[in-house]
This record gives sequence, structure tokens and C-alpha cells, in this order.
Amino acid sequence: MKLVRFGAIGAEKPGLVDADGKIRDLSAHVADISGDTLGAESLARLRTIDPASLPLAPEGVRLGAPVARPWSFIAIGLNYVDHAKETGQEIPSEPILFNKLGNTVSGPFDDVIYPKGANRMDWEVEIAFVVGKRARYVEEKDAMDYVAGYAVCNDVSERRFQSKRNGQWVKGKACETFGPLGPWLVTTDEITDPHNLSMSLKVNGELKQTGSTSTMIFSIPYLLSYISQFMVLEAGDVVTTGTPPGVGCGMKPPQYLVAGDVMELEIEGLGLQRQTVVPFTG
Amino acid sequence: MKLVRFGAIGAEKPGLVDADGKIRDLSAHVADISGDTLGAESLARLRTIDPASLPLAPEGVRLGAPVARPWSFIAIGLNYVDHAKETGQEIPSEPILFNKLGNTVSGPFDDVIYPKGANRMDWEVEIAFVVGKRARYVEEKDAMDYVAGYAVCNDVSERRFQSKRNGQWVKGKACETFGPLGPWLVTTDEITDPHNLSMSLKVNGELKQTGSTSTMIFSIPYLLSYISQFMVLEAGDVVTTGTPPGVGCGMKPPQYLVAGDVMELEIEGLGLQRQTVVPFTG
Repeated sequence: MKLVRFGAIGAEKPGLVDADGKIRDLSAHVADISGDTLGAESLARLRTIDPASLPLAPEGVRLGAPVARPWSFIAIGLNYVDHAKETGQEIPSEPILFNKLGNTVSGPFDDVIYPKGANRMDWEVEIAFVVGKRARYVEEKDAMDYVAGYAVCNDVSERRFQSKRNGQWVKGKACETFGPLGPWLVTTDEITDPHNLSMSLKVNGELKQTGSTSTMIFSIPYLLSYISQFMVLEAGDVVTTGTPPGVGCGMKPPQYLVAGDVMELEIEGLGLQRQTVVPFTG
Repeated sequence: MKLVRFGAIGAEKPGLVDADGKIRDLSAHVADISGDTLGAESLARLRTIDPASLPLAPEGVRLGAPVARPWSFIAIGLNYVDHAKETGQEIPSEPILFNKLGNTVSGPFDDVIYPKGANRMDWEVEIAFVVGKRARYVEEKDAMDYVAGYAVCNDVSERRFQSKRNGQWVKGKACETFGPLGPWLVTTDEITDPHNLSMSLKVNGELKQTGSTSTMIFSIPYLLSYISQFMVLEAGDVVTTGTPPGVGCGMKPPQYLVAGDVMELEIEGLGLQRQTVVPFTG
């Protein structure tokens, strides 16, 4: 299934995308797409619904992030061999974890706000996974039982906040709107191999990032298991798994975003998202 | 007011502490002590209630954290002059931010779990503040309008996870039960000067940390304003503000916690909390 949330910010309804690409309203069946919806039994129940029996959402309706605000929004640093090289860093011996915040998750086509005082705002196309049930001390062999699905994520970053403001990285990773997610939450049964998907990011129509989830260093089941050794992941939590080469700070000279820039991100099977950078206006 | 949450884990009721130190049940007036309860108007309304009119909570009832699970649980590193010196670090030129997770918040007398694979588990007595309303780009002069109250926090840490597992600090700061909070959330009107409170921590009855919030480098209003330049704080979020000297990793030789140890933390006006370290049992 491709699950979505549609409607005005803060008033999104749950939905799914039917075989014709139309959005169908799931409100009669679940309250939201959130931790409560994403367990195996709940997803199995949703799969039994005939999409044609569901009301169509209004044409052109806004899409929100395909999962409600998560408790935790965890991210992985330097998780692609080719990206680690691009930034001049060592290939990590074990995953680097950092935090975004649940309230940075935003819709796949929502504007991204240029923070006050920013001057090194950057893009990162990533595959995120969404947790389907509470995970603590999970073994890697069992880890996929805890993953509900995948979504495109833009791990928007402010490099000076991240690295030059006395730490930790969260300072440059958790600004308002720095977590566009979606368009869809694609359940795991629809993706044969999440570690073999092409991915790309354009800025103003120009290709900046191309890559494949096949060059990921630490796999999705490895990451879920690993994180669960340090903290408890809750159903509905989001983990974004790192970016391939082509970020602005890796260019020579570096390229950063300015207000008016348009980012377009795509991952094979997971859809396309697009955001415009807008100045902060209060 | 001294606000509390009492009852079994996950089923806490809201309450307050009356002039005799007895817990009174606020369930008839608010659903929980959370972001929704902590705005100025809501607190003003609670202050009009005669505590004697409220039912008494059962004698000896468990106390939960005095605020419901927050969206964000932010912490400040090296925020005491004397603690920075003890760890051999420079005094920070601007605050160091790191994350705990909302689900690490636990009750003030709940057991603290010794994580699998841990071997450098440490204590940190801290004053935390709880956010009363959504804060983005707040000026320091206005910042106290956004603070609902204060509580004792034990910023429990695993030093090897924090510093020797390839980063970031969250790895050693967000383990399950690593955020005992309470016993009370003391509203700001009850604390004349939050920057002049004595604080202490004992392990097995032996005094380890003594200090005063007066040696804090960055004040509470400064911190709220500062954090709000990087991210949006939500009502009910918790910010713990750093620890005075006397942590285990600063001792020569270092001293770390083991299962069975009992920590007792106290801050003037904010009460006392006590936890036993227990082995992980699954």
C-alpha cells in the first residue's frame, strides 16, 4: 500500500493511493496514519479494503507527511560509501546517529523555511523507514518485522549551525520544516529490495545528487537493530538513513540554497517530492 | 503550584501538592499535566481551585514524571563553570545542545535500567525547565513567558556510548529510563530565583555532587531564547540545563554506577528524587 495523509496542515486525514494514482479517504477506517495504524495486524486489515469503496479525496489536495508527527526522528550520518568520500571523512566503523525533531517533519510539497541567520543551507535525499512497532534490543534477523514502510526524506541541513556553532549536529538538523517526508509511506511488501533503489535530487531542475541505496554502508535492518541497542523506538518513529553523494557542502566550491530555490527529490518506487525555499517571515 | 502525576506507569493522573504535602487529584479539572495544561491561562485557572476541595490521592501512590511524555527533551552540555573545569574542557562560547528522547522521561522514584553492554553509567543532577507555550525565535527578554516551571532531572548517561561509539552524544543519553524527572513540576511563581538554588546528588548515601545553579554559564531565559533560534520548542517540552561538578567520569579514578546503586538527587525548592539502578531483564 501507498499510505498518505491529505488536507490542511494540522488537519490531515488518512488515505491511500489507488491503482490509478488517485487518493482515497481512509478516515472511516483509521483515525490517522500513525503508530497506532502501522502494526502488522492493522496494515493487514487495511489491505482487505477495496480502494474503490473509499471516497475520493479532493483533486489537488495538499499532501502532509505520510505519518503523523513522530515521537522520535532519528537520522544516520555518512551512511553512503561515496558520500563519506565526498566529504573527506572516514567510512564510519559503526553508524553515526543524530536527531532531528518530530516537529520538523513536514509535507512533501510544503515550503522549506530559510532559518534566520542561516547561510549554508543544504539538501540531502534519503530513504527513511517508519517503525511499525515498539523496538528495544531487536536482533538484526528480526528487524524487518519492526519496519512498516519507506518514504522519501529530505534531510535539510544548515551546515554552519550543524558544525560551527559548538555542537551537536541537531542545531543544524532540526530547524522548522527541515524534514519533508513523502509523498507516500510505501509498505514493505511493495518494495522487493530497499537496498537497490535509484535516487536523485535536483535544484532548480539541475541534477545534484544521483545514487542508489545499494551503496548504503549499514542496511535498514542493521540500523533498526543497532539503534534499538541504545534507545527505544516507538511505533510511528521515523529513521532517515543517510544520503548519497552530491550535497552542496561537498561541491567545489560549495553550493548552498537561497530563498526561491526549488528542490525535487525522487526515489525509485517511493515517488517524488518538491519544495521551494522561502524566507522566514515570522 | 507543585504539579504532579500519580498512578501506575502509563496511567498517571494529574495532581497537585497541597500545603500539607498531600497529593490532590486534579483529574476533574485537566486531563493530564502536559502541553495543554501549562499555558499561563490554564495555570491561572488551576490556581483558583481550593486544594481542599480536591480528592486526596491514595497514600504512597507512585509518582510519574510531573509532565506527560514531551515531544522534545533537549539537554545542555557543560553549562557549569566548575563542571567544565572538572572534565578538562573549555568553557563553551555558546551552549552545547544535545538530545535525550521524550520516551526516556521516567518517574522520580522509578528504577533506572542498566543498559545491555554498558560499563560507564554515570549520574548528573540538573534543573530542568518545562516549556509552557510554543517557542520560536523568542528574545531573551521575553523568554520567561515561555517557561511553565522547573523540576529536578537526573541526566543519566553512559559515557562510553556517549563518546566512544562514533557519535553523537544521544547514544549515551537516550537509553530507556535515562530521564528521571520530578517529583514535582514547580511553577515559576514559586521560585524567586532559579539561578540561586543549591543542588546535590548522593550515591548509596555518599555525597557526590554539590553545587548551585548560580554557577550556571547560560541562564534559563538565555537558553530558551537560544534554542528557539535553531528549532521550535512545543508546550510541554523539557530542557535540562547541565550539571555541576562531581560526576563519576570526572573522579580520579572515575567511578561508575553498578546494579543495586541508589541515587538521591535534591534541588532547593524542587524536592528530592531517588532511583535504584537495576539490571536489564528483558
